[in-house]
Amino acid sequence: MRITGVDITPVAIKDPPLLNSRGVHQPYALRTVLEVHTDEGLTGLGETYGGVAAEQRLRQSALAVVGLDPFDLHGLRRRLGGDVSADQSAASIVAAFEVPCLDLQGHAAGRPVCDLLGGRVRDAVPFSGYLFYRWARHPTEPGYPPDDWGAALDAGGIVDQARQMLARFGFRSLKLKGGVLPPEQEEETIRALRDAFPDAALRIDPNAAWTVPTAIAVGQSLEGVLEYLEDPTAGIAGMAEVARAVGMPLATNMCVVTFDDLPPAIAAGAVQVVLADHHSWGGLHASQTLAAICNTFGLGLSMHSNSHLGVSLAAMCHLAAATPNLTYACDTHAPWQVEDVVEPGALRFVDGALPVPAGTGLGIALDRDALGRLHEQWLKCGIRERDDVAAMRAVDPKWKGERPRF
Amino acid sequence: MRITGVDITPVAIKDPPLLNSRGVHQPYALRTVLEVHTDEGLTGLGETYGGVAAEQRLRQSALAVVGLDPFDLHGLRRRLGGDVSADQSAASIVAAFEVPCLDLQGHAAGRPVCDLLGGRVRDAVPFSGYLFYRWARHPTEPGYPPDDWGAALDAGGIVDQARQMLARFGFRSLKLKGGVLPPEQEEETIRALRDAFPDAALRIDPNAAWTVPTAIAVGQSLEGVLEYLEDPTAGIAGMAEVARAVGMPLATNMCVVTFDDLPPAIAAGAVQVVLADHHSWGGLHASQTLAAICNTFGLGLSMHSNSHLGVSLAAMCHLAAATPNLTYACDTHAPWQVEDVVEPGALRFVDGALPVPAGTGLGIALDRDALGRLHEQWLKCGIRERDDVAAMRAVDPKWKGERPRF
Repeated sequence: MRITGVDITPVAIKDPPLLNSRGVHQPYALRTVLEVHTDEGLTGLGETYGGVAAEQRLRQSALAVVGLDPFDLHGLRRRLGGDVSADQSAASIVAAFEVPCLDLQGHAAGRPVCDLLGGRVRDAVPFSGYLFYRWARHPTEPGYPPDDWGAALDAGGIVDQARQMLARFGFRSLKLKGGVLPPEQEEETIRALRDAFPDAALRIDPNAAWTVPTAIAVGQSLEGVLEYLEDPTAGIAGMAEVARAVGMPLATNMCVVTFDDLPPAIAAGAVQVVLADHHSWGGLHASQTLAAICNTFGLGLSMHSNSHLGVSLAAMCHLAAATPNLTYACDTHAPWQVEDVVEPGALRFVDGALPVPAGTGLGIALDRDALGRLHEQWLKCGIRERDDVAAMRAVDPKWKGERPRF
Repeated sequence: MRITGVDITPVAIKDPPLLNSRGVHQPYALRTVLEVHTDEGLTGLGETYGGVAAEQRLRQSALAVVGLDPFDLHGLRRRLGGDVSADQSAASIVAAFEVPCLDLQGHAAGRPVCDLLGGRVRDAVPFSGYLFYRWARHPTEPGYPPDDWGAALDAGGIVDQARQMLARFGFRSLKLKGGVLPPEQEEETIRALRDAFPDAALRIDPNAAWTVPTAIAVGQSLEGVLEYLEDPTAGIAGMAEVARAVGMPLATNMCVVTFDDLPPAIAAGAVQVVLADHHSWGGLHASQTLAAICNTFGLGLSMHSNSHLGVSLAAMCHLAAATPNLTYACDTHAPWQVEDVVEPGALRFVDGALPVPAGTGLGIALDRDALGRLHEQWLKCGIRERDDVAAMRAVDPKWKGERPRF
């Protein structure tokens, strides 16, 4: 089986005004959908970051993979070049093509992707409910239809949001995107969540918006309340300082983002939980390697999410299903996305968990009408790179999105 | 596809009187051959350690794998139990069944095993020529036919042996099993090899027969002569002490034998090269995980060998072919074994390297007549566990095989 060509389609999906330490989500989130075709008539699906820079790199890389056997994942890395252990961008490109190759392998072998990753250890993958401080609507887009979640700008708003999310999805774990309000208010929000949902595991992720002293103060104050504290501050040295002072595990998808970050982070004791993300770590195989390293060095493992569509969700689900030590519920933006390129039905949350899609490969199919529609939306929306800082600046012209903020 | 049953056949193969720090190889080496059958009529082959204890554990474990899908390698580990990260024995049992499962996966998918491991990065796997001080014949077995290698009990003997081995196999790398003669004499042997074969990479493995001071003295003396020094002394602490004092990489298959050994060894800087062995690390997937950890932490990777047959050699070859950072030539006892259970033709060294067997799965087939003959030999030979100490004691009644020896 040989790859004969790759279709690369940039898409834009409606995205709510979710707040974070950099600013606010733009009205549209960008993603890129890959269809990898072969001489045997099989097609493998992939999804990765959006934006014109990513798209350009993908189009160049697509030329290099023509002729490749989809089972030859080492050959894929060789053809694409770059140092995937040290360079997140190189690893992202490999991942973008590795997932379609695994989808193809699964179709060719008549097996779901999780079987090619050692077999499923769970039939359904637990996800966490991702809570955001947010506005009711995008202030710069009067014509943009508001969703039915409403605003959430304090503890009460987040508890209401969580209640809605649990009712719709049944999550057992809740993650609050922090770094938005002063830390005392975010702490108050966490305590309100704890009171309202005593059985839910709680996390907060201020995206390195806090200084080391702030991170230590919040971490010490919330001891026993959080299952982990994600990226309270920036960098391995800062995280190590916080880790020494607080009693809860620190998690990261910011200071450990490549394999080369692991030895210094482990030596420094900077983190206790790593958030895998197959999009940026080099694919599903690389993520399983990360999982094995975490297992060997006594680190916990969770999963990071950007705004994404169903192709990514399916890949995340197969990976998590086949990774024994992925014991924390995975992050997902899925509740916030109302548009998809995947035919409906294959991906449905049940009690906060996503059953592994049935069928071979990733177990999903493209909805070509939806793909066309979301590509049209990409053409029209005018956004070409994600820029949460610029989106916030439309409201607050002095906004710089600098970190640490508190 | 489900496993319906496992045939387990203990075999004994003629083995020359190869000397090492524990004593001498017995006249027969023991191995166990596995045939894993499925409801789809496919059979997967495996090979692991011999001896009645191993055989008993395998027979018990075989009951647990009936009904398993050969793609469900996580399920295999779960059914077999034990802590494969910490317990070499548990990992060995998993490995014994994992390789036949991968052979089955390959047959089912119509792919060689290396394709299921990410694809081949090399078409032929370089091996090293494994040199042993040895007697011409087994002293206790007057009726046992001597082989045509002859004795090698000093530098000149080993150089002659190396010359024969290079002529027959074409290896580019030579490994001397040390710990047999006083270190000065072994050093003399290494220097004689260096003179005789100036282009060959050289290693010596005294199997921890040396004290730390001896290891440091030899290591300093042979600086620039060896590609690595393997297990000069015992334990992580001792190896770390030697590593700090010598300028060449230290390799090990003795002080780092499970995943749990890696963090302390890395923290101590005890070793610079780890010798993978899929038989004891938990299989081909686990060995690739070890490889990835070595890559991440800047350790070199080589491959260990016990006396083995063609099933193991094929598995080693697929693993090495699909492991980019396996850059040292792999060890093999193949030159010393004249009997095999594998149909001839699939495994032939060319210029010191073994081309990856063609065909699906491991690319080998059982020679059932040979299997029967070697099983008969097992029944008759009287050896039930490997015991190099006892074999030496037949000649030297006071021999204890204690280490360190020098």
